[in-house]
Amino acid sequence: MRAYPSLERTFARLAALEGASGILGWDSQTLMPDGAAEGRADQLAVLRGLAHEILTGPEMADRLAAARDEALDPGQRANLAEMARSHRHAASVPGDLVEASSRAVSKAEMTWRTARADSDFARLAPDLAEVLRLQREIGQAKGAALGLSPYDALLDGYDPGMRRAVIDPIFAVLRAELPGLVAAIAERQAQEPAPLPLAGPFPVEAQRGIGLALMTAAGFDFTRGRLDVSLHPFCGGATDDVRITTRYDESDVMRALMGVLHETGHALYEQGRPAAWRTQPAGQARGMTLHESQSLIVEMQACRSAEFFRYLAPLLRDSLGRSGPEWEAENLHRLGTRVAPGLIRVDADEATYPAHILLRYDLETAMIAGDLAVADLPGAFNEGLHKLLGVTPPNDRLGCLQDIHWPGGAWGYFPTYTLGALTAAQLFAAARGAVPDLMAGLAQGDFGPLRGWLRRTIHARGSLAETGTIIAEATGAPLGPEAFLRHLRARYLEA
Amino acid sequence: MRAYPSLERTFARLAALEGASGILGWDSQTLMPDGAAEGRADQLAVLRGLAHEILTGPEMADRLAAARDEALDPGQRANLAEMARSHRHAASVPGDLVEASSRAVSKAEMTWRTARADSDFARLAPDLAEVLRLQREIGQAKGAALGLSPYDALLDGYDPGMRRAVIDPIFAVLRAELPGLVAAIAERQAQEPAPLPLAGPFPVEAQRGIGLALMTAAGFDFTRGRLDVSLHPFCGGATDDVRITTRYDESDVMRALMGVLHETGHALYEQGRPAAWRTQPAGQARGMTLHESQSLIVEMQACRSAEFFRYLAPLLRDSLGRSGPEWEAENLHRLGTRVAPGLIRVDADEATYPAHILLRYDLETAMIAGDLAVADLPGAFNEGLHKLLGVTPPNDRLGCLQDIHWPGGAWGYFPTYTLGALTAAQLFAAARGAVPDLMAGLAQGDFGPLRGWLRRTIHARGSLAETGTIIAEATGAPLGPEAFLRHLRARYLEA
Repeated sequence: MRAYPSLERTFARLAALEGASGILGWDSQTLMPDGAAEGRADQLAVLRGLAHEILTGPEMADRLAAARDEALDPGQRANLAEMARSHRHAASVPGDLVEASSRAVSKAEMTWRTARADSDFARLAPDLAEVLRLQREIGQAKGAALGLSPYDALLDGYDPGMRRAVIDPIFAVLRAELPGLVAAIAERQAQEPAPLPLAGPFPVEAQRGIGLALMTAAGFDFTRGRLDVSLHPFCGGATDDVRITTRYDESDVMRALMGVLHETGHALYEQGRPAAWRTQPAGQARGMTLHESQSLIVEMQACRSAEFFRYLAPLLRDSLGRSGPEWEAENLHRLGTRVAPGLIRVDADEATYPAHILLRYDLETAMIAGDLAVADLPGAFNEGLHKLLGVTPPNDRLGCLQDIHWPGGAWGYFPTYTLGALTAAQLFAAARGAVPDLMAGLAQGDFGPLRGWLRRTIHARGSLAETGTIIAEATGAPLGPEAFLRHLRARYLEA
Repeated sequence: MRAYPSLERTFARLAALEGASGILGWDSQTLMPDGAAEGRADQLAVLRGLAHEILTGPEMADRLAAARDEALDPGQRANLAEMARSHRHAASVPGDLVEASSRAVSKAEMTWRTARADSDFARLAPDLAEVLRLQREIGQAKGAALGLSPYDALLDGYDPGMRRAVIDPIFAVLRAELPGLVAAIAERQAQEPAPLPLAGPFPVEAQRGIGLALMTAAGFDFTRGRLDVSLHPFCGGATDDVRITTRYDESDVMRALMGVLHETGHALYEQGRPAAWRTQPAGQARGMTLHESQSLIVEMQACRSAEFFRYLAPLLRDSLGRSGPEWEAENLHRLGTRVAPGLIRVDADEATYPAHILLRYDLETAMIAGDLAVADLPGAFNEGLHKLLGVTPPNDRLGCLQDIHWPGGAWGYFPTYTLGALTAAQLFAAARGAVPDLMAGLAQGDFGPLRGWLRRTIHARGSLAETGTIIAEATGAPLGPEAFLRHLRARYLEA
């Protein structure tokens, strides 16, 4: 009996467990009553524990080794490599540590919800310290097995192959270039007349209707996905059941819509993964740098272009029953490309966003290394943000409590946001070169040309190749900061 | 190391898997996009398969045997007996049969949705035949292991200890008594002036608001549950996350509300189970006869009483902004206690409802025995309904396609509806005798006295005693048809 086919069956079961956890996780953040939190934490911990048992079962290493000697086509070979990678990651962490971490994360996420609302970091601190303690244990265990530092080992879990040694020189360029660039943009925008504000209220139902129209235009498949509401927008769910969320602010229509476009970018990646590999590791999204590149190529590259606002303006006017100069495409475009240092990462413009990531990257690498204690996080956060952007959070709700990632156990995740932004800029430049009618399409709400190029070069490749290979083959160059900096100069200083 | 504590840990994991399946099953019927059906079927099949593996693992029988010789208190002893029962049920069915059945059910349920809408039995027939084939296999395998007929073995899975030998004599009394009783009620109601109809439309949001108010009055805990919408109302979810559904008809306000009250009865049972045993078999609801008794004691015994309509009438008038003689309590009571043979089981009044069950019981026992083929089901259904109630479905949508149970794999479930109705009548008579202010409470929307009695005598007992013991201790008599027949005579012929 050949080992490879039996591995495919086992990994299909793992994919089903992953899908079940995805839907339960989605439910936790959208619909679940508060009193169900403890039971839900048990459910997720048990599912993760069982997946871990299957992935690290006594015969798994033998079957993986045996399959390596079997005749496989290149797709199967890539799939086997991904199976082995998953196994290595899982086998390096004891099962009780996995379950303990899952439970600690569920508890900390629930605490975070109220601690954030009340701006009460002290309430979260013990739960967060427990999550960090377990993340450090996981990083050390994985690092020892994979020959990586603890932080690189955690990072590799989100973005296979990514290393601090790759990130640090790229981030050094951003640290050097961005402050001057942001200042130049601010100076130029200060010399222009201020864009006209959009006066609310904007009813939630109308906002939701526009969001659904934009998702449809972008090519979201509603037979295999949904749009719902959560405190922190995300793209989750399962294969063939991709669920994105947003949150509505009746005073700010652009916020929810740009959020919807962002998550739609993630969703298009999920819905465009190779169907033939849908239950297999090779059919999954490649990693978070590419994933974030797909959200940002839609939200930032495509949908903050002057061309896209020519499509969006009449849609907004008709859907909201508004008119006037503030609803003209040019004004909307200027509103949508306003650059100003602010406190909240998810509200940041694309020029100041990397500063939020540089800060979190510095802080989480220090916490994982044991150089920064949880108790000292609020002070370090506020000081760091002031140094990087010149603004200081007046409280922790607007400071280190704003993101779910740390209580959510997603350590090593933050840098992929900015790596994704750089990748998006590099991909979009390549797409514009390769697809002549791309921008003309966007001006009419036709995402087909862009989506077609992304399907071919990114989505349909799943995990059949490495991130570096996919980027290099799509753009003709390795990942770097140059395309992103060129994009900022072109959009904000040269247009 | 003692076996019993390790069994408790294992069964807590099983409870978490059960809860995960409960939420995923709820999602399938409320929110899931159509294209996700195949993936969801995989998820549920894998979860059930894993639970089955755990329950039938090589050391489970040994641990159960070892625990029997350990010092246990009475609660632990009852818990161990339930563990052993679950194990016996599971171990008698091969794992691949469990997974095949789960997949067949998921597929048939999806087909049923469109086949029912289009009244196209032929479309469902192949999927239904496959579900039946696997149910017969399961019944035979369980029956052989438990020393039961295949049908009794399936029945025992829903209602531990229930047997055809118990049901048949009780159902024989109903077969003999009900036709005459229904005719007498119809004759009496025909002599009275017809109740005034309620003219719609009734907006869904207003109906939902009334439903939530009734759930609150009944004591539903919204921190541990939800109300949503599905095609076929049900009570599902997980421990501490009890989710009931209803469906709204803008032309019929009583339909959704009585549905909400019915499912609220189920939910009160789930929310009132013994907290100390929440993750253990002894903490689960005892079986479907008692479960249905809890929905019917709320919907039929309490909420179709003249007293309850004195509370409901002003609530409806205020919530819907209506007035007039048709909205007086007496008219609403007469509308809510109208007896008339009809086609649809879930719309049937309590006097004709048992006929729908007698029919389904006859048909499903014949199908499990191999005496009735799926192809012959529509004809047998229509003929049987005509014989029992004098009405004939004009199409299969209003006939054998109306219920999800058979495509849903719930064979051996139907009789528990009527056994539940008999139990509800017997319990309510006992409650009225034991709690003097029970009816006065209902007249003011105060369910506290009834709920308190049910919590003590039924809910909090979980599975710590047998169904027969629970009923006998609560009512002073074994389960029989007499209290139900007395209730019908008192409400419909003597009031």
